[in-house]
Amino acid sequence: MINVMIQSFNFARIPHIIFGAGKLRELYKIFPKFGNNILIVVGGSSLKRYGKWDEIISMLEDKSINFFSISVSSEPSPALIDECAQKFRNKNIDLVIGIGGGSVTDAGKAISAMIPKPDSIKNYLEGIGNKTHDGRKIPYIAIPTTSGTGSEATKNAVISEVGPNGFKKSLRHDNLIPNVAFIDPELMISCPMSITAACGMDAFTQLLEAYVSSKGNPITDALAFSGMKYISRNIISACSNGASNIEVRTSMAYGSLMSGITLANVGLGIIHGLASPIGGFFKIPHGVVCGTLLAEATKMNIKMLQEQGPAGKGALKKHAKIGALLISENFKEEGDIDKYCSILIEILDNWTQELKIDKLGKYGIAKEDVDKIVENAGLKNNPVKLSKENINAILINRI
Amino acid sequence: MINVMIQSFNFARIPHIIFGAGKLRELYKIFPKFGNNILIVVGGSSLKRYGKWDEIISMLEDKSINFFSISVSSEPSPALIDECAQKFRNKNIDLVIGIGGGSVTDAGKAISAMIPKPDSIKNYLEGIGNKTHDGRKIPYIAIPTTSGTGSEATKNAVISEVGPNGFKKSLRHDNLIPNVAFIDPELMISCPMSITAACGMDAFTQLLEAYVSSKGNPITDALAFSGMKYISRNIISACSNGASNIEVRTSMAYGSLMSGITLANVGLGIIHGLASPIGGFFKIPHGVVCGTLLAEATKMNIKMLQEQGPAGKGALKKHAKIGALLISENFKEEGDIDKYCSILIEILDNWTQELKIDKLGKYGIAKEDVDKIVENAGLKNNPVKLSKENINAILINRI
Repeated sequence: MINVMIQSFNFARIPHIIFGAGKLRELYKIFPKFGNNILIVVGGSSLKRYGKWDEIISMLEDKSINFFSISVSSEPSPALIDECAQKFRNKNIDLVIGIGGGSVTDAGKAISAMIPKPDSIKNYLEGIGNKTHDGRKIPYIAIPTTSGTGSEATKNAVISEVGPNGFKKSLRHDNLIPNVAFIDPELMISCPMSITAACGMDAFTQLLEAYVSSKGNPITDALAFSGMKYISRNIISACSNGASNIEVRTSMAYGSLMSGITLANVGLGIIHGLASPIGGFFKIPHGVVCGTLLAEATKMNIKMLQEQGPAGKGALKKHAKIGALLISENFKEEGDIDKYCSILIEILDNWTQELKIDKLGKYGIAKEDVDKIVENAGLKNNPVKLSKENINAILINRI
Repeated sequence: MINVMIQSFNFARIPHIIFGAGKLRELYKIFPKFGNNILIVVGGSSLKRYGKWDEIISMLEDKSINFFSISVSSEPSPALIDECAQKFRNKNIDLVIGIGGGSVTDAGKAISAMIPKPDSIKNYLEGIGNKTHDGRKIPYIAIPTTSGTGSEATKNAVISEVGPNGFKKSLRHDNLIPNVAFIDPELMISCPMSITAACGMDAFTQLLEAYVSSKGNPITDALAFSGMKYISRNIISACSNGASNIEVRTSMAYGSLMSGITLANVGLGIIHGLASPIGGFFKIPHGVVCGTLLAEATKMNIKMLQEQGPAGKGALKKHAKIGALLISENFKEEGDIDKYCSILIEILDNWTQELKIDKLGKYGIAKEDVDKIVENAGLKNNPVKLSKENINAILINRI
């Protein structure tokens, strides 16, 4: 039988994973491993509204755990991280916990990395500062309350400054992968429909981009495919009549976790390459950017791969496998590649409509902005080279 | 669509993986991260015979790296580990490297864990000593030269004392997972046919047992399935005309790595539950024990699962999926469960014959020994309960 030769690869690391509905009640069991002086970074009010925050507080008090807490209500900026790191630099923090959506878990990750440093995070951001972070940090536990960013398993924290000269850049080091990814799908039950939809599309985007990445390897392939299986069978339900079904939320949480693990180990494609400048220039949720571009970008990638002829066959076949997965079939015959690629595009289009994913225009992005976005887009690990015109067309269709 | 509910799970950790043909030439690049005083644990003579050892030595000398080396020529005993740990306890070793088959990589793992301890490894072995290892160790890099044990990714080192009161027990701690699993399939090209066969069967056994384990989770399922795919398509070839084909060896090395990762994260079934007492009482390679029992034990598990009725359906379906994989088909219909289970058994039987896996009798194991072996067998994570008579029957058929 014919092998596809496994190319050389590195696989960095994954966090220790604790996964399961109701696990939050056992959170205190892991504290002794790290120490007793804890900084908790939490999000806005949704945890508080649903009583989960009170549950956490009384657990900590019951166990006589010392803790500080700070609230983060938007995507973290350099100023926010600097202020928090400064405040807790001399407090002998043993452990940082971030509990919330991707902004919060990224903020916690960045704070845990900046407490041991004397200066501003700006000095260490990719493409912004001129220092390299050495990976020294306070141990960090990420507890996601949305299923989307996979930040609980990634080695970077995304930091943004929004505006005409804005940016969305990463603090990145292998050692910033959280020590523990603590995932309790019960925390996601109260996540509203629009956020569940945008986050679910973000997770699926990360999985798809990792699966077809030019840097993929058999480990990331296996995990990305497994994640796509769970997300694809639950994303519509999670945003409708299954929103409070714990099996549905568990499947989404698992898929999101896989998206983080695979994203941390292989680069991403054009969608994330566009999300970075768009998120820097405009105030728009990251999940919406990914969700709104997913079908269009996939359509363009498939088209350009088809034009490549034999060289594009491998990546096309992978797109076909995803198409087959989405209708619970199995891709077997080379002759079926085009059929399943079309199915993939069709279903992604359907999701975009059914989940009511906003277009970019709603967030003030206009045709005149497209050139500047394209200028700043990256596509390092996209499965096929795209021209500026190609990228332009993806955006124009979603303004 | 119907979900199978994801049950709670923990996923411990995996090593940093560096994988690829020819990677050994870049080994020196990772030394600076750990330090410059290195202890290398190597196997018998095969590395030396094929010139690879000279290559390593000259690389180390070129880069002015301080190193000691010790040879391990059989499965490690407590006395061997104690002697080596004692010898290097005051040598300020920064890094231990184990390069060889499973015995050697396990020996290196145990030595790296025992250098920081003042006493004998016997005190820390499961079921033998009364102390618990705390996970403190010298950083450790495992470089396998066979595709079989997956020791490069596991958290335990198997230590044996062979004889009538013999044992085969583990030193185990999450932190004993190697810091780096460094896998260069070129090192496996010279592995002889009989060892390639036994190790390949061991790897497949670990993957199959992890996949049907009662403790399995979607991550181990995805990785075990991926590993079985690569092993099943290459095991016969690796032991015949593909022995010096780097693609074939690369696929086997990948499958073996997956077997280690999954084994480290879920328990194993009856085959490994029997390998432990058999390996303690008799001098027989671990891979031969697994290989010789694989088809018989799988046959018995399937039979008992079928007798269970509806409760056994989930695990039977997983066996059917493997059967389908082995003939490059896809399991879809409940009605096909029995068909694919039969195919699985048939192919494992074929492998056992084609790869000339020895029976137990060849190593002095007789019918009279069976009761004592059964008495000491474990089957904690086997997908179905087996009676002593069931286990007895598995063994009798392979004496």
